[in-house]
Amino acid sequence: MADTWLPSLTTATPQEGFELATKLARVGVKLTQPSSEIRDKLRATYEQDAGQLIASSQVIAIHFQTVSAANNYWREG
Amino acid sequence: MADTWLPSLTTATPQEGFELATKLARVGVKLTQPSSEIRDKLRATYEQDAGQLIASSQVIAIHFQTVSAANNYWREG
Amino acid sequence: MADTWLPSLTTATPQEGFELATKLARVGVKLTQPSSEIRDKLRATYEQDAGQLIASSQVIAIHFQTVSAANNYWREG
Amino acid sequence: MADTWLPSLTTATPQEGFELATKLARVGVKLTQPSSEIRDKLRATYEQDAGQLIASSQVIAIHFQTVSAANNYWREG
Amino acid sequence: MADTWLPSLTTATPQEGFELATKLARVGVKLTQPSSEIRDKLRATYEQDAGQLIASSQVIAIHFQTVSAANNYWREG
Amino acid sequence: MADTWLPSLTTATPQEGFELATKLARVGVKLTQPSSEIRDKLRATYEQDAGQLIASSQVIAIHFQTVSAANNYWREG
Repeated sequence: MADTWLPSLTTATPQEGFELATKLARVGVKLTQPSSEIRDKLRATYEQDAGQLIASSQVIAIHFQTVSAANNYWREG
Repeated sequence: MADTWLPSLTTATPQEGFELATKLARVGVKLTQPSSEIRDKLRATYEQDAGQLIASSQVIAIHFQTVSAANNYWREG
Repeated sequence: MADTWLPSLTTATPQEGFELATKLARVGVKLTQPSSEIRDKLRATYEQDAGQLIASSQVIAIHFQTVSAANNYWREG
Repeated sequence: MADTWLPSLTTATPQEGFELATKLARVGVKLTQPSSEIRDKLRATYEQDAGQLIASSQVIAIHFQTVSAANNYWREG
Repeated sequence: MADTWLPSLTTATPQEGFELATKLARVGVKLTQPSSEIRDKLRATYEQDAGQLIASSQVIAIHFQTVSAANNYWREG
Repeated sequence: MADTWLPSLTTATPQEGFELATKLARVGVKLTQPSSEIRDKLRATYEQDAGQLIASSQVIAIHFQTVSAANNYWREG
């Protein structure tokens, strides 16, 4: 992951901010488990597990707090 | 999910803000498990599981922090 | 839940704020599991489960952060 | 719990603030499980359970964020 | 624990702040389980349990948010 | 860990901030389990466990909130 994958926390809309939060949650997993093969195998399991889906949704929620603050909540000018 | 589903974090009242937080928690799950068929199956299980209901309530709580801050806590003018 | 149940985050005292946080935690569960019959059944179980009581207390704590910020921590004028 | 048990979030020192956070974590449990008899029974179990002790410590940490902010982190002057 | 163990949230460096956060996480456990004998026994177990180590790391992270804010993130000048 | 490993929370870019958050999550584990031998053994297990990977990603998310705030979200000028 030597490339630039996070140049900025700024997004044009809240929805793009939510998508960025989702990406950050995935990168957090990737940095801990770099093998995409193993991640794919695990994904097949946890996508069928309600508890782990809720936990994933929670990580997204935490990142969305950060991205929202970074964008001043996309309040108009 | 190419449509616009989150144009703004602004809501008229705290109650609408809470409903938006609930929606955000659900979208977080949807982005991880896009199949509505599987989500419906999982929902049937976790709606009967106290631990997972509390975990869902926690994700809503985190999003409600974000939405509340975005709306300056709906303090009067 | 078409009625108004959350007109404001403002409370007169920290203690009332804590009670509001408790209410918000419960509504989060209610919006996920609307059947009061099932909720009552689950409550009978989780009220005897230390882990789930602690998890409930955590959701209250997160909402209490929100309510406290909304009230400027009830600092005197 | 009709009495006043939380008149203010202000404390003289960070240490008293931490003790208040601990109290808030306990009250969160109490409001969910009002029976002191059941709570005492559960306490006997979870005090021997590392996972639940860590979870309790986490709830205290969340409340300590709130109490610390309320006291402007006890910064001098 | 009648002694003063938390006179201030101010530390000279981020690293000392992280160490203070670690201390706060431990004190949160201590206030719930005062027996050092039982804590030592539990520690022997959870130090071998990845899930509980990650949970401990999470409590430290929450306290580090508080300590960092208290120190204005150790920004210069 | 007597050396300086956290001289500052300032980073040049959000991406470096995310890497710092990942480091802080690991140090939180290290301070609880100092033996690198045991940590390596545990890592082999939790890297194959979806729930623990998500939990690790959550700790990173919490630290990324702190690092992002410390850097004023890397907003320009």
